[in-house]
Amino acid sequence: MLRPPAGGKPLQAVEGCFMARLVLKFGGTSVADREHIRNAAGRVAREAAAGHEVAVVVSAMSGVTNDLVGQVAAVSPLHDAAEYDAVVASGEQVTSGLMALTLQEMGVPARSFLGWQLPIRTDGAHGRARIRHVEADPLRAAAAAGGVAVVAGFQGLSPDGRVTTLGRGGSDTTAVALAAALGAERCDIYTDVDGVYTCDPRIVPKARKIGRIAFEEMLEMASQGAKVLQTRSVAMAMRRGVRLRVLSSFQDAPGTMIVGEDEIVEEQVVTGVAVSREDAKVTLTGVEDRPGVAAAIFGPLADAEINVDMIVQNVADGGQHTDITFTVPKSDLERATALLREASLAFDALVPDRNVAKVSVVGIGMRSHAGVAQRMFATLAARGINIEVISTSEIKISVLIADEYAELAARALHTAYGLDCDG
Amino acid sequence: MLRPPAGGKPLQAVEGCFMARLVLKFGGTSVADREHIRNAAGRVAREAAAGHEVAVVVSAMSGVTNDLVGQVAAVSPLHDAAEYDAVVASGEQVTSGLMALTLQEMGVPARSFLGWQLPIRTDGAHGRARIRHVEADPLRAAAAAGGVAVVAGFQGLSPDGRVTTLGRGGSDTTAVALAAALGAERCDIYTDVDGVYTCDPRIVPKARKIGRIAFEEMLEMASQGAKVLQTRSVAMAMRRGVRLRVLSSFQDAPGTMIVGEDEIVEEQVVTGVAVSREDAKVTLTGVEDRPGVAAAIFGPLADAEINVDMIVQNVADGGQHTDITFTVPKSDLERATALLREASLAFDALVPDRNVAKVSVVGIGMRSHAGVAQRMFATLAARGINIEVISTSEIKISVLIADEYAELAARALHTAYGLDCDG
Repeated sequence: MLRPPAGGKPLQAVEGCFMARLVLKFGGTSVADREHIRNAAGRVAREAAAGHEVAVVVSAMSGVTNDLVGQVAAVSPLHDAAEYDAVVASGEQVTSGLMALTLQEMGVPARSFLGWQLPIRTDGAHGRARIRHVEADPLRAAAAAGGVAVVAGFQGLSPDGRVTTLGRGGSDTTAVALAAALGAERCDIYTDVDGVYTCDPRIVPKARKIGRIAFEEMLEMASQGAKVLQTRSVAMAMRRGVRLRVLSSFQDAPGTMIVGEDEIVEEQVVTGVAVSREDAKVTLTGVEDRPGVAAAIFGPLADAEINVDMIVQNVADGGQHTDITFTVPKSDLERATALLREASLAFDALVPDRNVAKVSVVGIGMRSHAGVAQRMFATLAARGINIEVISTSEIKISVLIADEYAELAARALHTAYGLDCDG
Repeated sequence: MLRPPAGGKPLQAVEGCFMARLVLKFGGTSVADREHIRNAAGRVAREAAAGHEVAVVVSAMSGVTNDLVGQVAAVSPLHDAAEYDAVVASGEQVTSGLMALTLQEMGVPARSFLGWQLPIRTDGAHGRARIRHVEADPLRAAAAAGGVAVVAGFQGLSPDGRVTTLGRGGSDTTAVALAAALGAERCDIYTDVDGVYTCDPRIVPKARKIGRIAFEEMLEMASQGAKVLQTRSVAMAMRRGVRLRVLSSFQDAPGTMIVGEDEIVEEQVVTGVAVSREDAKVTLTGVEDRPGVAAAIFGPLADAEINVDMIVQNVADGGQHTDITFTVPKSDLERATALLREASLAFDALVPDRNVAKVSVVGIGMRSHAGVAQRMFATLAARGINIEVISTSEIKISVLIADEYAELAARALHTAYGLDCDG
């Protein structure tokens, strides 16, 4: 805490210490019941006692949001999203009040703020609203009065004055938006894991916790990271230069800092290995190879907001026809195949395949190191693992392989890039 | 429904019917779960289908408010009332959203309004706020668009923009305030009893449901009525001329109309008998009989907001000293006796007594009929029941008696004033 942040934001010296503006966010498992709320409040109290200006963001107590969503679904399967939001936002409302009361009991002045009270202005897309503007003056006033503002996460105010919610994991986004609006030195995301790992430890037992990771890497690790941190919140943190920290509310450990590239000192070629089983593969064989055919395939999918990730096109015969393979989220597979069969598109066969996994190696070091892809392909080949599709970005190489090889591939790559811990 | 109200409010003719503005309020047991909400929504849909403009007020689902209050108390026994309100108001928020969704499912356009959204402006007395102003324009706009507004009861917005609650039973007050602001023809309070009775049927099996009762009578019946209707809501309805109806959401029966005296056609001398065990008796013996002594006794109690109900003063000896007896709520008895012992007041003894009951006969007919009190005293004397304190108003006679005689007294008086049903 004594080190000034590299981002260069001005710090005030308080009794020889640096006073920082901090946003602390506690997820559902961290505020699951009174005991957990007390534990979380203790962390807030400690930061406040250290002289920091603290704002808190809370999720609903774990299970509450699911319960409210269930109630809405039971009443109205195709519900009005505005009413859904009014009902579901009540979960964070309860936690914010209980957290403020708990802090008060500990002698820390605190008050709750609901989304509409600051307000946190969003667009009108109920159920998946985006934050447009956070009015931070009430938070500054609370801090100036020596108090801790406890903000209900996940919720905002639509242009026509109704309650909106930001979609699952939206409290992370609330926290980052608050941190940006306040110019906070750091946004701490307290959760039930102790940081971001080089790979999912359930797959790779030798996975190590990452001390520092760049925003871009974190975004590419999303398939793993999504469980830790909402992707949208990472993107917002990157865009607005908010230093994020992911750490456990159940133990005292430093967690993982997610920062700008300039703050990454020890650069590794590969930072982590990510495994995703979220996507399915679709192969269209015998597609006429003519201009506009890609638009005929991917246009309807884009219109239906189906996200296509990897794409590969093979020349199949004498140049007249081709095979096209791509991936879509498993949850959209049925919809995607139906749309393609309806589309004005000639092909021989449509072959869906759910038994695929995407394994990626991620690292900003790739930019300046050659041979990363070569090592990946060699490592997989040595285990007899067939690569079905490849896609690359500046800091990532992903391969689509048969589902059953995913763990083997991840462990082999983890070792090959020198990521295994010593233990 | 076809009859124009006696209050003389203008009605519009719609296809030969009278279109009325109605406020329908559903208590916690009437919206206890999805089935109950559906049943309540069916009643709303029926009124809307009859061409009426309908606004709905809902309580929290039964048990929810108690649960939230329990959570607050567990976190912080001496809680900040503003945070209490933020937490507890979430119960009505959930019901309002679920009710709007249920109406939509039935094909009735509907949307929810939270207290801050209209807004319902209150003072800043958290936990027991009073409504200052209801902004009815959003409700009129909703009605003009052919929709039903579903308002979360019990909650409002303080002058400094925080959530307030109106105290237990506050949703009744919300409903009456809305009805007054809208100039509604009637405010229907749906609950788990089918109306107001001549006496509590658990005490007097021969009690009859009252078809019409005057506001003033209802207020005096409060000890019984409090279970049916919040006293404050009756007072507001009287002041603002809102015709109230209490009826069951579980059966189709006309319920009880609570109206102005001018609407009471068949006037009875006594309308009902009320039994209250809420008060305790305090006797101060040997109090010096001098000017200012009443102020010395009742001043400190008033300062502590302890409500003194019945008072009687007896001459004890040669005119130098006196005994003073009065009643206070049982819940304030400890506090009251402590205050009196601390007060600069000379007396021989302070005798508290919790074993008392207040039995009252109520009726606006008393104004024009003599002998009502005489019959009461004779009836009690015939059963050997000793009267400890008497207090009267223009439309009520109350006696304080030993607790154990309360049921006997109530049944005897119910018979004596001709209130028993034929069955």
